[in-house]
Amino acid sequence: MSPMTKIVECVPNFSEGRNLERIEKIVQPFRAREGVKLLDYQRDEDHNRCVVTVVGEPEALKTAVLEAMGAAIAVIDMRAHKGQHPRMGAVDVVPFIPVKNMSMKEAIELSRQVAQSAAQKFKLPIFLYEESATAVHRRNLADIRKGQFEGMPEKLKQAEWKPDFGPTEMHPSAGVTAVGARMALVAYNVNLGTSSLDIASDIARKVRHLSGGLRYCKAIGVELKHRGIVQVSINMTDYTKTALYRVFELIRIEAKRWGVPVVGSEIVGLVPMGALIDTATYYLQLENFKTEQVLESRIYE
Amino acid sequence: MSPMTKIVECVPNFSEGRNLERIEKIVQPFRAREGVKLLDYQRDEDHNRCVVTVVGEPEALKTAVLEAMGAAIAVIDMRAHKGQHPRMGAVDVVPFIPVKNMSMKEAIELSRQVAQSAAQKFKLPIFLYEESATAVHRRNLADIRKGQFEGMPEKLKQAEWKPDFGPTEMHPSAGVTAVGARMALVAYNVNLGTSSLDIASDIARKVRHLSGGLRYCKAIGVELKHRGIVQVSINMTDYTKTALYRVFELIRIEAKRWGVPVVGSEIVGLVPMGALIDTATYYLQLENFKTEQVLESRIYE
Repeated sequence: MSPMTKIVECVPNFSEGRNLERIEKIVQPFRAREGVKLLDYQRDEDHNRCVVTVVGEPEALKTAVLEAMGAAIAVIDMRAHKGQHPRMGAVDVVPFIPVKNMSMKEAIELSRQVAQSAAQKFKLPIFLYEESATAVHRRNLADIRKGQFEGMPEKLKQAEWKPDFGPTEMHPSAGVTAVGARMALVAYNVNLGTSSLDIASDIARKVRHLSGGLRYCKAIGVELKHRGIVQVSINMTDYTKTALYRVFELIRIEAKRWGVPVVGSEIVGLVPMGALIDTATYYLQLENFKTEQVLESRIYE
Repeated sequence: MSPMTKIVECVPNFSEGRNLERIEKIVQPFRAREGVKLLDYQRDEDHNRCVVTVVGEPEALKTAVLEAMGAAIAVIDMRAHKGQHPRMGAVDVVPFIPVKNMSMKEAIELSRQVAQSAAQKFKLPIFLYEESATAVHRRNLADIRKGQFEGMPEKLKQAEWKPDFGPTEMHPSAGVTAVGARMALVAYNVNLGTSSLDIASDIARKVRHLSGGLRYCKAIGVELKHRGIVQVSINMTDYTKTALYRVFELIRIEAKRWGVPVVGSEIVGLVPMGALIDTATYYLQLENFKTEQVLESRIYE
């Protein structure tokens, strides 16, 4: 791999979590393909949904994502879809995340290309969301998806919900899709040495953006009944601007107010190396440290 | 690259730091070669020495290292060599460091193969050192090299200094070489907010193995005159057993004794990702974190 190879991640969500044969057809385009690497896919029967994690070079990934979208549209009929997770389309949402040698601007451009091609190819209405959104009210996926598959025919009639690409009527069986670029999410939980959910919820309110906390931090209080403790469960929406260690230390400070210790924390799923380097840099007070000093980053560049 | 590809690092030291044409001949075998990647090479005119950092798959790296040794032996005549750094051969020392999917045992085996081939091919006396050493008194490179090139003819006559491979007489122009396997070294410095070298030296004595400190830690006090401060300059000889954060926190504790603040720290050169993950894991109190959760480790595996 050349040092300048661009790498982008894609985490498409498909509305099928039960039929393994269909899921295999959807995932197939990501397998054994030059320039694309399937990292993971997880299906959930209750949600009736499958989440794929794939990385690759932009052009190769674009081709594979479009093929997987076509496969999903061919095998999923949303008119028969039931599941606990909110959804509006067979291909519910397709986020692109810049990983290496790739700017957010380039990821946005890639998402627009995929959205345009898919809309044309599959006669699918597509909204651009997050960093790719064309209006402020379309940034948040929850706002776009509100009303879900069943409500989309009515929603699309409103001028402010005219799709960015594709027809203004819903695809009869595949519904509507959101495509966009966003920062890598880090799922991060901090465990507290108390059984009081009130304390976890109070701290979550204080550290999250929504209610006055850190800009790129979403948080709720959660009970871990099997351990008899509680947790502040966090989604870091831009770890490059709101660092992991900052929310960790802030939670520690807020927990002191209750005389409650932080007993641990956990990172769920994948985390970019940069988030851990930031953490080491802060606590060791590192001067002038560069990512290129990490041996592994040099081996594989 | 397959997930199971073995990766080993080699940091050979050659006794030529002035003649660029000769250095290029020595480095050439590491360039544009399948399965081998030249990361860096640094020459020092005062030391009259060149240190190469290269990684690769074991077989490919072995071939390249043997070629580079041959090139060095062809162009360097130790009888005319002058330099500040202690040295005993044209190829002074060849350490192998396990990096990925590679045990220390495998690195030792690789070092033995290289030592045996080189001894035979170049009629060169070779000592196995560090983890590959065949006797306790041969573990430490400084002990093997004592007497330097000029003293080797006499030294080799002693029974306890019979080479592990090759002739029992010194190579007339290339001297003697040490080959072995060792852990990755991390060069790490901690800066103190005082101009007192005595304080840095006192703390260095307390944290280093030699005088009662941490097992895999070498340290000395150093003045940073241009900044008006002092530094504990450290070599971490096995960061998997003596973690960076542990020596950092210990220095902080010792500095408190003098009312001196730690104003920063620095990692010089390359550091394995694992050392930074350890640090993040400690300070964030991470539970069950695995290296495979680092996005970059998955992309390039």
